[in-house]
Amino acid sequence: MDWKKGILNQIQRTHKCCFEMSHIETQKKNEFLMHLSDIIEKKTDIIIKENQKDVRKCEKQNYSQAFIDRLLLTESRIRKMSSSLVNIAKLDDPVGTVIRETTRPNGLLIKKVRVPIGVIAIIYESRPDVTIEAASLCIKSGNCVILRGGKEAVFSNSILVECIKEALYLAHMSPDAVNLVKTGGRMGVKYLLSLNNLIDLVIPRGGESLIKTVVSISTIPVIKHYKGVCHIYVDKEADIEMALNVCLNAKIQRPGTCNAVEKLLVHKDIAKIFLPRMAELFVENNVEIRGCPETMKIIDSAKPASEDDWYEEYLDLIISIKIVEDVNEAIAHINKYGTKHSDAIITDNNSYAGKFLEEVDSACVYHNASTRFTDGGEFGLGAEIGISTDKIHARGPMALEELTIYKYVIYGNGQTRT
Amino acid sequence: MDWKKGILNQIQRTHKCCFEMSHIETQKKNEFLMHLSDIIEKKTDIIIKENQKDVRKCEKQNYSQAFIDRLLLTESRIRKMSSSLVNIAKLDDPVGTVIRETTRPNGLLIKKVRVPIGVIAIIYESRPDVTIEAASLCIKSGNCVILRGGKEAVFSNSILVECIKEALYLAHMSPDAVNLVKTGGRMGVKYLLSLNNLIDLVIPRGGESLIKTVVSISTIPVIKHYKGVCHIYVDKEADIEMALNVCLNAKIQRPGTCNAVEKLLVHKDIAKIFLPRMAELFVENNVEIRGCPETMKIIDSAKPASEDDWYEEYLDLIISIKIVEDVNEAIAHINKYGTKHSDAIITDNNSYAGKFLEEVDSACVYHNASTRFTDGGEFGLGAEIGISTDKIHARGPMALEELTIYKYVIYGNGQTRT
Repeated sequence: MDWKKGILNQIQRTHKCCFEMSHIETQKKNEFLMHLSDIIEKKTDIIIKENQKDVRKCEKQNYSQAFIDRLLLTESRIRKMSSSLVNIAKLDDPVGTVIRETTRPNGLLIKKVRVPIGVIAIIYESRPDVTIEAASLCIKSGNCVILRGGKEAVFSNSILVECIKEALYLAHMSPDAVNLVKTGGRMGVKYLLSLNNLIDLVIPRGGESLIKTVVSISTIPVIKHYKGVCHIYVDKEADIEMALNVCLNAKIQRPGTCNAVEKLLVHKDIAKIFLPRMAELFVENNVEIRGCPETMKIIDSAKPASEDDWYEEYLDLIISIKIVEDVNEAIAHINKYGTKHSDAIITDNNSYAGKFLEEVDSACVYHNASTRFTDGGEFGLGAEIGISTDKIHARGPMALEELTIYKYVIYGNGQTRT
Repeated sequence: MDWKKGILNQIQRTHKCCFEMSHIETQKKNEFLMHLSDIIEKKTDIIIKENQKDVRKCEKQNYSQAFIDRLLLTESRIRKMSSSLVNIAKLDDPVGTVIRETTRPNGLLIKKVRVPIGVIAIIYESRPDVTIEAASLCIKSGNCVILRGGKEAVFSNSILVECIKEALYLAHMSPDAVNLVKTGGRMGVKYLLSLNNLIDLVIPRGGESLIKTVVSISTIPVIKHYKGVCHIYVDKEADIEMALNVCLNAKIQRPGTCNAVEKLLVHKDIAKIFLPRMAELFVENNVEIRGCPETMKIIDSAKPASEDDWYEEYLDLIISIKIVEDVNEAIAHINKYGTKHSDAIITDNNSYAGKFLEEVDSACVYHNASTRFTDGGEFGLGAEIGISTDKIHARGPMALEELTIYKYVIYGNGQTRT
């Protein structure tokens, strides 16, 4: 099988770059980012031309408008990609930081030092902006990258990876530090996920079925960026104006994102005052309401929510509302139906808030704020490769530091163990 | 299938305890440890009686002496287990530590707080001491535990888990926080590894085939404790007395451990002076020497090393020796044949040492010290659940902190995103 040999050869070449990347100076990595920023700006026309090949093909095949919008590269989007690279160049390099240092009674000096992970494979759908984002963050953190984007974006990704390789070359780095795997179809992905001696980490970015496939096949460690079924619980002691404002924002400001709120849980004692006003705002903003039986008694326009509704990530102007007994029922509901992403409580009662923040098992838990803040930029991390919903290595926004690990470096003068 | 229902029921019960464990006070966890220490000391006789059932069965089935030794519980071993629990009680509780804290320009206060991982499954072979070690470290770090030990230790593990449950009860904690899965055979393990909505992390501890099976089946994140093919590189600028001393110690002090040295790489310029003396020491201490062709020219008693020898973890009084051109060849050899565990350089040249420490991609890299120090106790971590050879979450000795993760807790006053 020729594609197998081809993939293996690409990944072996990338793996070989780990060595070089593990001790590359920050300045060189920043030069790469600045070159890349220039190149994609200068090549805007040709990038758009290649992207249009993908777009036209998908239009012919009647892909959805939302799909084509994610695939589309415009002049302003390319300019945004280019300027984000300048920002990444400005971020601190996490590699080499000494996390901890101890001298043991026997004189051994033990340093815990931050190092790159090695080879990271990013498996994603047809969003060409991920190509630049993933490659730039991985390189800045000293990693090598294998990219596997959706087949619908193959022309776009190819030209972007060409730009990346040119920038690597100009920065005197090995162009093989980033490689795009295009062949083999689904079997190609399966093969890639079996190469656990050459790839150290897989980050799948995309819909549920992509994530599930990667998790079930991979023998390489995976950090999942799974769906966000985010909740806001409006407590009986909530400031109602604040609750209305936060819930509306969290739903409508960008409903297609994973940190948008999908479910509202409302304390039974506040429901009759709060929900009619909330419903009015939602209706004004074209948000479809689905409710539990109690909610339906209060909101006439609400459709009945099914059991599946509590699990579903709508990514759309839809919200499901449930009236609960108290904060305990809210916490239990979230821990059962949520996806460990982002959940908020609106209350003026600090004791309920404390309970919620402690007992809700999610990457990000909020008191009196919108779930929409779960984002590397908003958290002050400068950028992000995505939002981890896993419970090892990294939770929530994954930025440069989360793309590294550590090693122990131990200095002795002949110590032996007795 | 009855066993399936039984396993599911056990794991669901353990999963439910996460909630209680996530905010349990340190004092209660320490009370549990102290009770357990008392109980196993008091029940020494009955533990030995149950352990003897396992031992006798294995003797009848002609298991190896090494296997039975790992299975055997003696009075002194039980006393050691008991006192290790007192030590774990003394260790700092990592849960609740604020790792980082920022206030954003919009007034959001973001805290990164250390929390337990959740439910951790430990899959191990027939070493009953792991039962106590894993349960105590996981509970102290706020996690719930599913134990799956080797079938040959089922009587031993059952009595030990009874002790654990009694101690949990006495500390007013839920006895379901620790459960032992005994049924289902291999299919039981397979089923357990599919329950990714109930188990957050799997730590396999044991031989290569156990680890490989777990990695290939599991849809739950796995942190591997894989084999240790550890190297020492003796540079041309090594202090010869130190090199002899360190290499001998790293090989013979406890050859059955994963941090014992398995391969020696020797710079060609020092080989003729160093190797005859080293060989003499090895022979005196019954160490079998296997060598590359160049080594065999210097050491008469050496057998030829095959390609497989460079990959093999002997766990025995055997060492393979290769003569190399320089530090670069040593590094390349280690990165190719090693297992990313522990590797050392012996040299007085700091520039070679720096290169080696930076470029060898292992969890622990040593300058002028024995690889045998890779151990939670020796690193000052107080204890360890094992040595991770993975490159995410934790590398090297995994202690209490490595059994935790973090969550972001965000405090606002009504912030919305614009």
